[in-house]
Amino acid sequence: MTLSKPYLLFLGDAKDELAAKTAHGIADWRADWCVGQLSLPGCKAHTNLPEMTPVEAAKAGAKTMVIGCVNAGGVLPEIWIEPIVTALNAGLDVATGLHIRLSSIPQVKDAAAKNNCKLHDLRFPELSLPTGSGSKRLGKRLLTVGTDCSVGKKYSALALQKEFTQRNISADFCATGQTGILIAERGIAIDAIVSDFISGAAEHLSPANKDNHWDIIEGQGSLLHPSYAGVCLGLLHGSQPDVFVICHEPTRATMRGVLTPIPSIKEIIDLTMRLGRITNPNIQCGGLAINTMMLSENHAKNLIEELAEEHKLPATDPVRFGAAQIIDHICQELKLA
Amino acid sequence: MTLSKPYLLFLGDAKDELAAKTAHGIADWRADWCVGQLSLPGCKAHTNLPEMTPVEAAKAGAKTMVIGCVNAGGVLPEIWIEPIVTALNAGLDVATGLHIRLSSIPQVKDAAAKNNCKLHDLRFPELSLPTGSGSKRLGKRLLTVGTDCSVGKKYSALALQKEFTQRNISADFCATGQTGILIAERGIAIDAIVSDFISGAAEHLSPANKDNHWDIIEGQGSLLHPSYAGVCLGLLHGSQPDVFVICHEPTRATMRGVLTPIPSIKEIIDLTMRLGRITNPNIQCGGLAINTMMLSENHAKNLIEELAEEHKLPATDPVRFGAAQIIDHICQELKLA
Repeated sequence: MTLSKPYLLFLGDAKDELAAKTAHGIADWRADWCVGQLSLPGCKAHTNLPEMTPVEAAKAGAKTMVIGCVNAGGVLPEIWIEPIVTALNAGLDVATGLHIRLSSIPQVKDAAAKNNCKLHDLRFPELSLPTGSGSKRLGKRLLTVGTDCSVGKKYSALALQKEFTQRNISADFCATGQTGILIAERGIAIDAIVSDFISGAAEHLSPANKDNHWDIIEGQGSLLHPSYAGVCLGLLHGSQPDVFVICHEPTRATMRGVLTPIPSIKEIIDLTMRLGRITNPNIQCGGLAINTMMLSENHAKNLIEELAEEHKLPATDPVRFGAAQIIDHICQELKLA
Repeated sequence: MTLSKPYLLFLGDAKDELAAKTAHGIADWRADWCVGQLSLPGCKAHTNLPEMTPVEAAKAGAKTMVIGCVNAGGVLPEIWIEPIVTALNAGLDVATGLHIRLSSIPQVKDAAAKNNCKLHDLRFPELSLPTGSGSKRLGKRLLTVGTDCSVGKKYSALALQKEFTQRNISADFCATGQTGILIAERGIAIDAIVSDFISGAAEHLSPANKDNHWDIIEGQGSLLHPSYAGVCLGLLHGSQPDVFVICHEPTRATMRGVLTPIPSIKEIIDLTMRLGRITNPNIQCGGLAINTMMLSENHAKNLIEELAEEHKLPATDPVRFGAAQIIDHICQELKLA
């Protein structure tokens, strides 16, 4: 993937911060690559980047406008078309992770051609994949697994990969969604794969490697999310993780975008073990990554301690408090690294 | 879908009878629509239709050659190209359920154009689908669920639908794979859907209906098949079945195409209940459909009796011995129809 940097992050009319998770992911993990943000009236999200028009961003050096907001179904709302055309007219390339191709919108296609700008559709893998084999591969794998969508599976995976690397343990971050791909500059948008090939794509994403190498795989969805569980299960089977880390957002009552209650951590651990065992009989839970963004520091620390005690597992907010406990557990108790 | 009938069924070089399951499905359930079969040297499958060349089939009235063999990954082997071109030169349309488009093969595209014949790609739904909502819909739904791929989920669904209809209970068969679509002349190839939309496609397939109407949904794969479990789970969530029927082939040791052992019936019932409850809290197991094709009648009857006793559920081979026990159970014990 070859996007020209730096980026202007488009927040659109994101209805909340989570809806701008692609923008946040890039701003949080690749701040050096960003010059500003562009939001539409009514936008409820914001990064800590300055607000800029496409023309201002181009003057500040921006080369690509990245669509930083997501929505269920990956469609492109009418009101995004004009700012995209404006960005192209300012000489910026445009990149999205939608389920439609930018070039399928005539105004966008024409503006790109007129300005000699590139359109990047990150969610359309050009790979030809086999179906999953279920055969065990060499190398170690860690998968982040959620009680819901948008609970911190990518941030946790990035934090865990960072902690492994700081200990001189060889570890790669394997991106499975548009934001992760923008951060890692490679990966497969697993939810855009034809469903017959989900586990095959996951096998391709973390190929056989040295026995002491770790692939840290970004999880997707939740095994009990009524919209996305299929993606989650195929990713689990193809990833054949030695270790999974549960990601949980403790203030949510219902799962993202639906009315279904959030499942318990215990239920997700149990289902992940039972379903994951099919491709890795030695699958183990490595700990809990609790997303405490909505809680005070005190409240967060108390809750983490309670959950660790309740589940007899290391718990932390890997973004807020670091991922050391979980990596310690993997190295010392599980003796895997 | 508008295929011209009758059909010549192409068996290719199918390595066993299961590899020709599309041909068998059409020959078994829509015999009136078929004039003959065409097999290549080394083919291990056969229907009870006469062997014909495309020219002979065209003389016998055939209008379409249907590719009746399947393979993991849905690719088109080189050696199928020549017979497909021959069929087009004989004036037949060609229909497939592969993951590639027939028109992507230059020789095939040219022959179709030259002979003014149609190419049908059944696995490419043109629908624009939403992601699954998880909301409960009116109407009753039955899903066939397998311990493996290719164990009789489609045949069982067809047999159950027939039994419902004979009792004047309103019931439709909802096809989810290429063979089912060829039999029902409608449906969605769920394994060809972009994975973000699996459960959304399943919701679309069995829309809200009268409370006493049954949709009998063809299951796919298995929750524990390392290649296809994601498809299976998305279909379960989107179908939100009131009743599921377990389909099992008792002579198989490993799952189709992989080295993974066949899971137990008990394990699949338990996982289906736990995962299915998310979109239908009242999900129940309606019985066991045992595929006894490989067993003598005596052996089959004894085994069915043992399994019924072991699981405290009605059991039958719905194709060989009829589906009455399962429908009786749904009507009388479960009081759902």
